[in-house]
Order: sequence, then structure tokens, then C-alpha cells
Amino acid sequence: MLDVTLLGCGGTMPLPNRWLTSLYVKYNGRGILIDCGEGTQIAMKEAGVSAHDVDLILLTHYHGDHVMGLPGILMSMGMSGRTEPVTIAGPKNLSTVVSGLCVAAGIPFGLEGMELTEEVCELAHGFGPQLHIRAYALKHSVPTYGYTIELERLRRFDPERAKALDIPVKYWGRLQKGEIVREPGLVYTPDMVLMEERKGIKIAYCTDTRPTDRIIQAGKYADLMILEGMYGEDERLEAARIKKHMIFSEAAELASNANATELWLTHYSPSEVHPENYIENARAIFPNTLCGTCGMHKTLNFTDM
Amino acid sequence: MLDVTLLGCGGTMPLPNRWLTSLYVKYNGRGILIDCGEGTQIAMKEAGVSAHDVDLILLTHYHGDHVMGLPGILMSMGMSGRTEPVTIAGPKNLSTVVSGLCVAAGIPFGLEGMELTEEVCELAHGFGPQLHIRAYALKHSVPTYGYTIELERLRRFDPERAKALDIPVKYWGRLQKGEIVREPGLVYTPDMVLMEERKGIKIAYCTDTRPTDRIIQAGKYADLMILEGMYGEDERLEAARIKKHMIFSEAAELASNANATELWLTHYSPSEVHPENYIENARAIFPNTLCGTCGMHKTLNFTDM
Repeated sequence: MLDVTLLGCGGTMPLPNRWLTSLYVKYNGRGILIDCGEGTQIAMKEAGVSAHDVDLILLTHYHGDHVMGLPGILMSMGMSGRTEPVTIAGPKNLSTVVSGLCVAAGIPFGLEGMELTEEVCELAHGFGPQLHIRAYALKHSVPTYGYTIELERLRRFDPERAKALDIPVKYWGRLQKGEIVREPGLVYTPDMVLMEERKGIKIAYCTDTRPTDRIIQAGKYADLMILEGMYGEDERLEAARIKKHMIFSEAAELASNANATELWLTHYSPSEVHPENYIENARAIFPNTLCGTCGMHKTLNFTDM
Repeated sequence: MLDVTLLGCGGTMPLPNRWLTSLYVKYNGRGILIDCGEGTQIAMKEAGVSAHDVDLILLTHYHGDHVMGLPGILMSMGMSGRTEPVTIAGPKNLSTVVSGLCVAAGIPFGLEGMELTEEVCELAHGFGPQLHIRAYALKHSVPTYGYTIELERLRRFDPERAKALDIPVKYWGRLQKGEIVREPGLVYTPDMVLMEERKGIKIAYCTDTRPTDRIIQAGKYADLMILEGMYGEDERLEAARIKKHMIFSEAAELASNANATELWLTHYSPSEVHPENYIENARAIFPNTLCGTCGMHKTLNFTDM
């Protein structure tokens, strides 16, 4: 199960009643935060999620509206008694940006940086072997990454097959976890005792960018795509092109091509006072689109048995 | 006339419905901002004051809750089309702090730093000769300054005296502005033609600190003192002493000793959910005390004729 909260839905600058775009994902009692513009720590309090438990912060890029809340969150985590280190991932220049932003923050725990240099990369993390976090380069005015968070579902163990193959019970647990068991003169592989693959849970988060094929690939069969829709109106496509952002219909096109289940739009321009007025521009292409709102929440469970 | 808005009233961290302590003072259509923690730009929007017009930012000290909103404000000022430089004053290490905080901010105008090194200093600024801004060192855990903003009232010109002294009319304007007129063989001083001194307007702002005599001196006959009251309860004096903050009754004592007209308390600890419950602890000492609230506003006019 993944618990997803869209903490904010704005771009460019925080507004009264519209926090900047940021995503909180909870898995096994620990948190992952994607982006943290000014005010994100307040948005977390409003949404009832705790900064204290955030072990991993993923930064898409270093425009102010995506990172300026970082020192405040780290400070507040420290004041709440946190002592465990926090890992921060982001594009090149990560340590310069983080140390600059934190110049006035007293942080009583370690920060571990994970600078992204490849176009596509799998991130090491401490959330266990079933969770896969990948970063992929986007197309913005500065180096920017999208992220997928994917929870793999373990294949079911088939005791009948194990018995038929005379596999000793003492190896069952290791095989069930996907481990290959090698002993002198014998090798047991998980495939021998595990049933068919089962669909996991996948979230694809992506802002700020122009549309790219890589976004479609990363979002393939995602349960939830969260994509920027800087402008709602199709007439603003040229402005989006110039500023390296997307309009609603472009985000919907990506979700449709990725065969995603659901799309949340976010990162609205401050000039979009009522983004919901343009939702049909997206739904005409991808019907299961929602306009993201601050604090919007969803629990994603495994869908098949 | 000085227009004063307390943008926030919290200390330590921003909370839903409580912005961090910050003061906006408007004079002659231009703004002075004292401190700017995370979220201050949103507080300004809520209070209906414009960041665009802020020419001078006064930082009390470099704890995160007083400065982390600086880059967001500067970015938003830039996006609103500002091109004129902004002056920022603060304790030593100003340029390190500002350049660190602004690492992810694109700011399309110049920043002029004014580092405070003396215990008491008068600040140069562009608000005209009638406005006096002074900084004075406080007693906190890091170098910290309080500020007074004082609008001098010009003395009234007495044309009868000028006529009696045969002062040519062409010099009257200069003398009225306080200028000494020297011509070959003659000297006219403003005292010759100006009537008695008149009370100006004075605001004294002071957080974070323990009580000191200097706060009393700086606040002498202030129309408005804005002082921190980290805790309301007298029982929390020891905590205030340790953390180098003040309780309500200490702030009231300072305002009373300064013969101030009015006191606003601010910079409440997040643990003070209902600071108004303790207002009597201050009013018993200084009756004209108000609990500061976010967006609290007052226009200060000259009081005597």
C-alpha cells in the first residue's frame, strides 16, 4: 500500500490557499517527499502528515518554487526530535544548493546527498527491496528529473509445487522472498515455486517539463500519474512551449499514451485562478483526470488478488 | 504618517493560520520590511500589502524563522516586474547568509547589503531626511538587532518672526526644511524662524531578546512598541531565560519603562496556542497591550497639532 498526498498544486509562487506543488508518499510508516517549495512544511501540517518521518527527499530541480521550503522542513524535523539522517536526491549541484539554502538552519542530523547524473537512474534507498524509485531526465529550462515510485508485489508461493519438487521446507522462506538458494550439489530458484507475476503499484510524478516519450515510458500502466498542467487553456500552448511547461491537454495525452489509470494535474500558474474550469480539455483526451488540490489524498492498494 | 502591518505573530516555525513574525511599514508609498520567515510573501498577499514596493529589508538575526522567506519575496518581487535595487540590512555575515538563501532564486535587480557592526547605528536609506531608522544590539543567542523607525515632524514656520527679522522670502523654503542659509555677510538659521519642536511618530521593534536597558532607551515615548512575547505564562520565565526570549510580563515592563503609548506582543512559541489567554499578565503592568495577530494593522498619524 502506498499513501499519496498532494501537498500543494501551485507553480511559480505560493498563494493564499494554494501551496506549491509537492508530493508526500508514505510506505511502511516512513515518508518520501518530492519537492518542497516555500510553505511545504505548513502544507504538511494542514494535510496531517508528519515531516518527522520523511527519510527521503527527491528534488526535481532547483527553481525556487520547488526547493525553498527545504531548510524549514529540515529545521522543523530537527525540532521534532529527529536524529536519523535524511537522504536528499536531486540534479547536479545538489550540495551547493542544499548548503546554500540551509545557511540559516540548525539541523541536528546528517544529510546524505544523492546527485543524479545519468539520464535514467534507479535510486538506492532504505525502504526495502520491494520499493523501486527511479529518476528520469525531463525537458525544462534547467536540469530536471521526474520520479516513479513503484511498489513491487511479491509473487505468491506455491507449496504444492515445492512439495512436488521435494524442496526442503527450510528453504521456502528464502525462495518466497525471491532469493536463489545454492547448496553443495543443488540450486533452487524462486521461479520453481512462485506463481505468476502480480501487478504492483506505480506512481509517476513529473513537473516541470515539456512532454517527452520518456515520460510515457516511465508512466506505463501507472496507477497514478501526477503531471504538471501549468495552463488549462489550449490557447496558452505557445506560452507553455516558451516557458518549458505543459498545458492540460498535453498532460492528458501523456497519461493516455502511458495507459495510466488516473491522472492528477498540478503546478498551476498563479494566473490560473480556477483551473477546474479547464478540466474538460484534459478529460476529452484522458477521462480519468482530476484537478489536483492542496491536501488531495489517495491510498493505493494492490488491485488484483 | 506611517502605516504598520504585523504580517505574522509566530516564532520558531510557521503554522497553519499563524505566519512567522514580520513587520511591514509603509511610508510615502514605499515599504520597509522587518524580517521575513518562511511564508512571509503569502502573509503579505493575505494582508493586502505589496512586496513590489519594498525598498528596504531589515533582518534582526539569522535564525531560520526570521530569514527563510527572503529568497521567495525577492523572486516574487522580480516576477512582479521590479528592477530597482533592494537594500538589505542585518548583522555580520549578511552577504554569506543572503547569497546562500538565494542560491535557487533568480533575482533581476541588485541587492545592496548594509552589514551592522556597531552596537547602535543609524541606517542610511532612501526614504528622505525626516525618516530615521536605527538599529541596536539585543541580547539573544546569536547577534541580533532591534530597530526603531522614527518619522520626525517638521517644526512649523513662523512668517511673523521671519518678517520681523527681515529675512528675504526667497530663503524661507530652505529655512523651513531645516537648512542653514549662508550668504556673504549673513547667516540665517532655522531656529530663527521655526516654532517649537513637535512630536513625531516612533515605532520600536524588538525580537528575539532578553530584556535590556537599551530596549527601553530605544523605545522611549514610542507610539508603538512591538516586542516579542515568546511565552504568556509567568511560570515559563526560566525557559525564556534559557532560550534568550521574553515572557509577556517582561515585554510589558519594557513598554512601561519606555513610556510607550501602545504595545503589541508577537513571536509566540508554537506551544502558545491561545496567547490571548495570558494578555492580563502584560496588561497588569502595561494596560495598553494587545496580542499581535497576523495582518494586524494600524495607521500612525502625528498626534499634536
